[in-house]
Amino acid sequence: MRLSRYFLPVLKENPAEAQIASHRLMLRAGMIKQEAAGIYAWLPLGFKVLRRLEQIVHEEQQRAGHIPLLMPTLQSADLWRESGRYDAYGPEMLRFKDRHDREMLYGPTNEEMITDIFRAHVSSYKELPLTLYHIQWKFRDEVRPRFGVMRGREFLMKDGYNFDLTREDALHAYNRHMVSYLRTYERMGLTAIPMRADSGPIGGENTHEFLVLANTGESEVFYDAAVAGLKLGDRQVDYDNREEVADICKEFTSVYARTDETHDEALFDRIPEDRRRVGRGIEVGQIFYFGTKYSAAMGATVTAPDGTKVPVEMGSHGIGVSRLVGALIEANHDDKGIIWPEGVTPFHVGIVNLKQGDAATDTACEAIYGALRAAGFDPLYDDRDERAGAKFATMDLIGLPWRITVGPRGLAKNLVELTSRRTGESEEMTAEAAIARIAEIYAGV
Amino acid sequence: MRLSRYFLPVLKENPAEAQIASHRLMLRAGMIKQEAAGIYAWLPLGFKVLRRLEQIVHEEQQRAGHIPLLMPTLQSADLWRESGRYDAYGPEMLRFKDRHDREMLYGPTNEEMITDIFRAHVSSYKELPLTLYHIQWKFRDEVRPRFGVMRGREFLMKDGYNFDLTREDALHAYNRHMVSYLRTYERMGLTAIPMRADSGPIGGENTHEFLVLANTGESEVFYDAAVAGLKLGDRQVDYDNREEVADICKEFTSVYARTDETHDEALFDRIPEDRRRVGRGIEVGQIFYFGTKYSAAMGATVTAPDGTKVPVEMGSHGIGVSRLVGALIEANHDDKGIIWPEGVTPFHVGIVNLKQGDAATDTACEAIYGALRAAGFDPLYDDRDERAGAKFATMDLIGLPWRITVGPRGLAKNLVELTSRRTGESEEMTAEAAIARIAEIYAGV
Repeated sequence: MRLSRYFLPVLKENPAEAQIASHRLMLRAGMIKQEAAGIYAWLPLGFKVLRRLEQIVHEEQQRAGHIPLLMPTLQSADLWRESGRYDAYGPEMLRFKDRHDREMLYGPTNEEMITDIFRAHVSSYKELPLTLYHIQWKFRDEVRPRFGVMRGREFLMKDGYNFDLTREDALHAYNRHMVSYLRTYERMGLTAIPMRADSGPIGGENTHEFLVLANTGESEVFYDAAVAGLKLGDRQVDYDNREEVADICKEFTSVYARTDETHDEALFDRIPEDRRRVGRGIEVGQIFYFGTKYSAAMGATVTAPDGTKVPVEMGSHGIGVSRLVGALIEANHDDKGIIWPEGVTPFHVGIVNLKQGDAATDTACEAIYGALRAAGFDPLYDDRDERAGAKFATMDLIGLPWRITVGPRGLAKNLVELTSRRTGESEEMTAEAAIARIAEIYAGV
Repeated sequence: MRLSRYFLPVLKENPAEAQIASHRLMLRAGMIKQEAAGIYAWLPLGFKVLRRLEQIVHEEQQRAGHIPLLMPTLQSADLWRESGRYDAYGPEMLRFKDRHDREMLYGPTNEEMITDIFRAHVSSYKELPLTLYHIQWKFRDEVRPRFGVMRGREFLMKDGYNFDLTREDALHAYNRHMVSYLRTYERMGLTAIPMRADSGPIGGENTHEFLVLANTGESEVFYDAAVAGLKLGDRQVDYDNREEVADICKEFTSVYARTDETHDEALFDRIPEDRRRVGRGIEVGQIFYFGTKYSAAMGATVTAPDGTKVPVEMGSHGIGVSRLVGALIEANHDDKGIIWPEGVTPFHVGIVNLKQGDAATDTACEAIYGALRAAGFDPLYDDRDERAGAKFATMDLIGLPWRITVGPRGLAKNLVELTSRRTGESEEMTAEAAIARIAEIYAGV
């Protein structure tokens, strides 16, 4: 993309309403614009990151064998009366009537609807196991929306639902989700720690939240420092192998890590003192096993091998996709702006032309831009007639991890500059070498 | 995908509520499930087609230089008061109050919001031209939703908005949209004819609808048979070249084609009699040039080269993405089911194993499945323990354009069968030849 033809409305001033870094930086970098309290338009740069996260979530869910579909944003109140949640859910649920006076709501979650889909179409254990998920906009009418997309009212969530014959099968689905989530966050460049949690209005006995450590997190967290160093890395996982999947879950959950809701002082004290940590975390996902809570209430049964009809075992599993954009920035920024991890950056590399209009630098920039695009990369070329300082400030603010700077002085020696946004380090090399380095960097992403 | 692990709830019976082919076939092929009047869940097969259409729309819009963003589904009533449309819009607009009693609505279209985004960030002609678009769910509270996704209440639409300094620039944007839409529909395997139309509540003087010819269309259309044969084909279009783009528009609009709303009997009579056609059409898109209607009302001005402030020239341009799924089926089906054009098919090819459990056929099917996936294709392998007849019926119903059938008799001669869904013709060949043929078929798609 050429910046002269893009829509990147960066702000020079810090917006007064933004209290935390991600909110401030998303506004300043032209990623979002507030349209109502807790309701945002995703401007082109923000939308690109959101789509990228969505893509990673799709890929990792499908790798785990989960099937995508798409449920609508609006739901009938009747469905929620069946589970008893229509009355139980508080004022966070946005309720209204359509032109025929039918009671409707904007879905805050989809347990009822997916159970309805299941019971309409599945009747035998032979069609199990089954995990369906979607990525769709939700609405929760927060009394005090704040922190930008971190606590918005209209938000994008991946929610998945497993249907299994037995408790053991459902617990395997639970574990499969935990592992697929760990891989999802790692691909995004995040360390998200699974912590035992309370189940809240979803219900159920087993539940873990995934928390990204950040000073601005809404939850207080207590953990063994060792947990933050755990990595899935590039191990191949066979999601059908129960033992393998369970072992990974054990590895990540046997080290102490809890939120204030479930914190156990006695257990915490057993951690060697130099590894005890108290901090704050941002919740970016949660998984639940709740058995037959919805299937029993809504009559979602299957015929078991012995011919009896049993309510299906279920769980639900969510990733806050729009919220993750904020969490990523909270975990990856400095005083100049955002620093995108390579896995989620909106553009792979920025190209800064130090002397726009100069035939030699223009030609060199065009050649680099063309070569990167031909190699399958998505570069952002700042081709505006602006001072170098302004171009650097914009690149630093929007946080592309790599920048190629092209100026007359370097070109005289046939060199350009490759700069890492994270370390700030620059290196001179030929344009060809810079392009090769970019290819190398993104080869494993 | 292995069918045994997929969620494809096909129906044996014709659903009583479905009056037209696309609605009936989408229900029968397990593509959608109604959740409330005019509100559908997109089951996995339907979601796959929807995503594919969305992808084509994104690619063609970006090829034309248009920039994607994403506006929220919910909007503030205040914004619509500025344009005067809050009161003007009828009961099709879903209105409600949030927990703080603020008046909100579920967006039926986005002229106001995009104008608000524009005026907040753009103030000079130097930042023009600019075309922003998004693909987002909309809601129109139709009094009588029907025909499945063809006239739903919650529907997916691409809506794009151009911002230009002059009327000439805006008309170029209008033309650019016409050409990008023609290419979009062609890639989907559809013949969509641009027809002069009425502007309705959007307003404006210039507008064309795109209609797909189908007996079940809601509009009566009058046209010169020559128009249905026009093709963009594989010509390369330079979307910045005004003359080239205008010439293509002229080519497609100078042949008579009108809906009953704008039909001119005198002009129609001038068409040679053997080319005069009266039929029905499904509207799948519409483009509008409306000048300063919204920018003047909402104060979206830019500084012109002479220093004066002028309201920006605008147009809006929509493609009904979810409705297109229905239109595609109306135009592509027979009495056995759907026939997907290669450009939009949910799976590239189906594999039918005639003797599941037989070591030789299982091995051959797995090899074909693996080879197709390794080559970047997305096959659907019917690995269920079902009779051949049931497998063929399912494949015919869901409409994959190509099927590879593997049975013991053929394998004895080292042959499989490649069948075209559209023609019904089968050809025996080796598995390798079948895979090569599939690669050849999709090379140009």
